[in-house]
Amino acid sequence: MEQDLKIFLEKIKDRSQTYIGYPAATDFNYTELLPFLEYSLNNVGDPYIFSNDMQSKQFEREVLEFFAEYFNAPKNNYWGYVTNGGSEGNLYALYLARELYPNGMVYYSEATHYSIQKNLHLLNMESIVIRSQPSGEMDYADLEETLQMNRHRSVIILANIGTTMTEAKDHVPTIQSILKNYAIKSSYVHSDAALSGSYLPLLGYHDFDFAHGADSVAISGHKFFGSPITTGVVMVKKSYKERIGRSINYIGSLDTTITGSRSGINALIMWYAIKKHGRDGMLRRTMECVENANHLKVQLNALGIPAWTNTNSFTVVFPKATEEICKKWQLASDNDISHVICMPGVTRAMLDAFVEDMKKSKQ
Amino acid sequence: MEQDLKIFLEKIKDRSQTYIGYPAATDFNYTELLPFLEYSLNNVGDPYIFSNDMQSKQFEREVLEFFAEYFNAPKNNYWGYVTNGGSEGNLYALYLARELYPNGMVYYSEATHYSIQKNLHLLNMESIVIRSQPSGEMDYADLEETLQMNRHRSVIILANIGTTMTEAKDHVPTIQSILKNYAIKSSYVHSDAALSGSYLPLLGYHDFDFAHGADSVAISGHKFFGSPITTGVVMVKKSYKERIGRSINYIGSLDTTITGSRSGINALIMWYAIKKHGRDGMLRRTMECVENANHLKVQLNALGIPAWTNTNSFTVVFPKATEEICKKWQLASDNDISHVICMPGVTRAMLDAFVEDMKKSKQ
Repeated sequence: MEQDLKIFLEKIKDRSQTYIGYPAATDFNYTELLPFLEYSLNNVGDPYIFSNDMQSKQFEREVLEFFAEYFNAPKNNYWGYVTNGGSEGNLYALYLARELYPNGMVYYSEATHYSIQKNLHLLNMESIVIRSQPSGEMDYADLEETLQMNRHRSVIILANIGTTMTEAKDHVPTIQSILKNYAIKSSYVHSDAALSGSYLPLLGYHDFDFAHGADSVAISGHKFFGSPITTGVVMVKKSYKERIGRSINYIGSLDTTITGSRSGINALIMWYAIKKHGRDGMLRRTMECVENANHLKVQLNALGIPAWTNTNSFTVVFPKATEEICKKWQLASDNDISHVICMPGVTRAMLDAFVEDMKKSKQ
Repeated sequence: MEQDLKIFLEKIKDRSQTYIGYPAATDFNYTELLPFLEYSLNNVGDPYIFSNDMQSKQFEREVLEFFAEYFNAPKNNYWGYVTNGGSEGNLYALYLARELYPNGMVYYSEATHYSIQKNLHLLNMESIVIRSQPSGEMDYADLEETLQMNRHRSVIILANIGTTMTEAKDHVPTIQSILKNYAIKSSYVHSDAALSGSYLPLLGYHDFDFAHGADSVAISGHKFFGSPITTGVVMVKKSYKERIGRSINYIGSLDTTITGSRSGINALIMWYAIKKHGRDGMLRRTMECVENANHLKVQLNALGIPAWTNTNSFTVVFPKATEEICKKWQLASDNDISHVICMPGVTRAMLDAFVEDMKKSKQ
């Protein structure tokens, strides 16, 4: 048993040296939180309602406060919780949208993460897929045309703030202006900001937040912030969420979350990450990633590889690499493209070794 | 920041001394797994399909093998995954049932955990609540009558294997015989075995498993086994789950799970717990809990308090305790009853101190 774990740890250590294809920061250190792993903290139900004692809701509320400001949520009218990851946040937001507009039609671009389609199926919601531009951003002309043909139905739009393959950002103000143009009053816009929403505000980009037309925002915690446990945050307008909750006697809590029982350690991790880095540290990490992405793009271009990035992005996109390279560097591929995501923890040395391999594979 | 954590840790340490009202084992020790918390293991998608490298799917599959045998799953026709907790397992099973029987009516007893109703709402499934017996077990006469009036519809039954308040077990063979009696061919029975399913097989009780009429079983990992992170296992018949999956290009995985990205540490925790205790250790812990529950019942009865337990149960039920006691001992209450759950980690000393408080409160 000890032997199994030892062998596995060695393998993980080794593979982490070439982990540049997935959007998970690896520069985290939660040593100070380890004493809490002796306990079973459970933030059951609503973060704002007292439940049992073995919980970390006070930290969860601080996390929510931070993101409320970060995402320009309406003061005194925001609500959210720390999730098990981005998917749960999106599921929650879409559930909320369905409760508000039971006959709403959902629109999302073809570059959208596969979990959205799964969530919509789970929620029994109808949807239409909108074309993407080559960059991965939504094709607004196609959205406009499609909406025009469905003006009798409420509109629910899922905006990607960082698509999975190219990290493209759908522009929420543009989406809102289209909705306005067609006088669509019943609409809901959710920003799936899993990766990019965590750092875009630091770069002065806010075109996905509450002040810029979103009704809810979800992010992943294990992506930009980094975490050994998948986690995330979902934030919505408080007035909306009250449609979902119902009072549950025996936990003494309003059960407004998807999972009910929720690991209290997740909230501690998010809290710790925010406090430890501070805005300055977060910005420093962000700049490093953007610069690394640019560095990699330039290096690949110098090899004659047409690599590219979207603005303010950690993701470098290029024609599909060889199977050997994809395997060694754990690259995710979709149809004819591969990508490297320059997350915090991906070093210049790793990128240069990768470029070296790309160079060899061309010879 | 360090100060905040220090104060919080002290509080948690203190409160853990009187944590006897919730179904979470506290006798766990995962020190050997801490080195893995430096990494971000993500068991994305299907446990049986290779995805990225930073994952612990080999351990997850061993966990599933264990539970397949434990729950008498059909050989070569089982599938499952390690979840974020019991609720996710139930959500998955009900989703599967809906895919098999889109117009199925769901039946569950009034003693059912509140998350089921929430899950059904999320899944847009119709349901009927069946009366419970005073013990908390389903009233089979009421089930029979209700089924009789709805024979035109497929039947989905959620059986509680350990209700939240009294740890009552719905008897799956009885449910199956009722279905047979009314010649209902299209049916699905899910065992929500969150707490009790984890130890009942050790006591020779199997009337909730695949060999006794269940189509799926879900358990919590943080309950009987104990875990600092909420976790669980869901197991279904493999032939069923293939209705849900769809191939996803860029993760190179069949996306058959609810959450998609899943913490690899959860599978390691379940694996470690099973290996470390072994069946003997698990049985020893179980016997201790059952004996502690009996001890507490006898002590309370001696005070003239009509405390009771269901057979093979860790849960002692009694008339609602005073607010002061509920607060100090973190007791969950529902209407007019309270309970203590003698989980692994709850000591005789804690129970005796609790009895002392109960005695004082009667004076």
